[in-house]
Amino acid sequence: MTQHHFHRDDLKTLALNLLTKGGLAADKAETVAELLVRTDEIGVTTHGISMVPYYLPELASGNMTSEGSWEVVRDKGVTMVWDGNYLPGHWLMTHALDTCIARARDYGMAALSMRRSHHIGCLSTLTRIAAEQGLVCYISTSDPSGRWVAPFGGTEPTLTPNPWAIGYPSKDHPVLIDTCASITTVSKVREHINSGTQFANPWMLDAQGRATRDPNVVNADPKGTILPVGGMDHGHKGFALALMIEMQTQALSGHGRSSEPTRWGGNVFVQVTDPEAFGGNDAFTTEVSYLNDLCRNNRPAEGVSRVRVPGDRAYDRLAQSRAGTVALPDEVWTRVAASAEALGVDLPVSG
Amino acid sequence: MTQHHFHRDDLKTLALNLLTKGGLAADKAETVAELLVRTDEIGVTTHGISMVPYYLPELASGNMTSEGSWEVVRDKGVTMVWDGNYLPGHWLMTHALDTCIARARDYGMAALSMRRSHHIGCLSTLTRIAAEQGLVCYISTSDPSGRWVAPFGGTEPTLTPNPWAIGYPSKDHPVLIDTCASITTVSKVREHINSGTQFANPWMLDAQGRATRDPNVVNADPKGTILPVGGMDHGHKGFALALMIEMQTQALSGHGRSSEPTRWGGNVFVQVTDPEAFGGNDAFTTEVSYLNDLCRNNRPAEGVSRVRVPGDRAYDRLAQSRAGTVALPDEVWTRVAASAEALGVDLPVSG
Repeated sequence: MTQHHFHRDDLKTLALNLLTKGGLAADKAETVAELLVRTDEIGVTTHGISMVPYYLPELASGNMTSEGSWEVVRDKGVTMVWDGNYLPGHWLMTHALDTCIARARDYGMAALSMRRSHHIGCLSTLTRIAAEQGLVCYISTSDPSGRWVAPFGGTEPTLTPNPWAIGYPSKDHPVLIDTCASITTVSKVREHINSGTQFANPWMLDAQGRATRDPNVVNADPKGTILPVGGMDHGHKGFALALMIEMQTQALSGHGRSSEPTRWGGNVFVQVTDPEAFGGNDAFTTEVSYLNDLCRNNRPAEGVSRVRVPGDRAYDRLAQSRAGTVALPDEVWTRVAASAEALGVDLPVSG
Repeated sequence: MTQHHFHRDDLKTLALNLLTKGGLAADKAETVAELLVRTDEIGVTTHGISMVPYYLPELASGNMTSEGSWEVVRDKGVTMVWDGNYLPGHWLMTHALDTCIARARDYGMAALSMRRSHHIGCLSTLTRIAAEQGLVCYISTSDPSGRWVAPFGGTEPTLTPNPWAIGYPSKDHPVLIDTCASITTVSKVREHINSGTQFANPWMLDAQGRATRDPNVVNADPKGTILPVGGMDHGHKGFALALMIEMQTQALSGHGRSSEPTRWGGNVFVQVTDPEAFGGNDAFTTEVSYLNDLCRNNRPAEGVSRVRVPGDRAYDRLAQSRAGTVALPDEVWTRVAASAEALGVDLPVSG
């Protein structure tokens, strides 16, 4: 696969110029550009600057709000509800994190449920902000207008894939878990439909309730769905996770499926916890690091080179990116370059 | 399967008499007996009075502490650490719940990480206590001396199955999720070994890293393990859950695998959240109930009679038990009756 290489500052300038030309207020564009590049730096290029060509039409249509702020619906100190007014999720989330981090330092723990954010990007780019400050950070997100996953035993699209992430410190780099309640994601389904490929395993469900590798079932009539974690065998466990996440993001924020929203929007739950307010930072990192090492030193299964703890790969990539340049796949660069040409924005030189 | 039927009060008296004869202080025996019978009432007979024959030798050996109280290691109001001193988990947890419920009413949210509890029984019997009071209750538990599950990609037993549960109110009865981070549990493995049966699907991993239906791999040399949720296909998702739960219960409580404990013990994390401190109780139950109904009214897959939300079956069973008698399988009753005979405790009449 052809890769293009850039200095991180050049990529950030490009993202910033594209977003401001697209109408986004400068302070918000600065934050979004920074977090997109941090995401490319850890190798998650599906959620980095590659998102800009999706955000530009959202800004043009007004689906992504370009200026203004969030509304505080409820603030009890330890618990909060915000209405994000469909502002850029990266920008809303950095403020949500700053607030929860400050409150967690005071109270030991703080949480915020947010209705009507726009796309928040890569969850572990966000949890990392708190984890690098020594805190535990849990984030979950859902879209009350989205229907992609059936409840276990059912067949009709009802739930979103419901991503969740948790980041927390260890003696070296943070553990960064970033996953979801379904086996695969909407973007992977679209990728497979676009490339005309089947999934490696039966991760989809047709409308009759039969497992299939075919991503096209989501466009059939009646529609098929994405299987929950556990699949046909133990998908009640993924369904349980999905219910928990929709509760945290929709029921706690007071905005969910009952109003039958049709506008795409991200509901988000974020909780920050301070280990110092429990058994203390030293005991915390001692236990986390001890368990991490038990995992990393575990005898690998046949065909596996070594056991990784979530976050290990991201930090390897980050070190490589920081030492040199950020790599983007050709497919991403082609789309970003097309957006730049359309808006008359200069492209950086590939390094 | 032969069933024995009892009035709940008679079963509770039996459990109470057995536990006090076994040396447990009266106040603690009262709580344990009550929660065991509540567990039988919802049909989870593996975790009801059937536990008493396991608890009695634990009391006799001193592995389960029979009197005294917990130690408060840390109390910051919103966050707490307790040392359970290996007291009965049901008794410790009712006090932990009472404390977290009161704090959550004040602050919106409260959490407690507890080291060195004894067995806490059925998690949803505990979360139900808070959920029936209109609160969200999350509980996770691990045993830092237990090794049954390998990290994804590895082969050596490292983690416990790591049960987790969440309960929360709806317009009818609470949603009660009660599950774990591995596909199956230690007690199911033992059941299958004792009955000489294979699992229906490959839920185990042999020491070479090959999936198998054979429960006996846990006794092989080198030992096999229980597969994490997601199995060979996407077991990194179950591994992620397991890491989160060991972090909540061990790293936050400041007592984990790093001290290489050999005594069986339950570490527990409990968090209670008040929906009124977020978007409000009405909005909360509206959203939860709307989504529950979308699930229950979902067109079932071929071979499925109807879609259930977690907690539906428990509340059907509870209504049956409250209307008449509590049913126990013959295998359970035989073991309980043997304990009663050994201690000279009268048996109730099967109704």
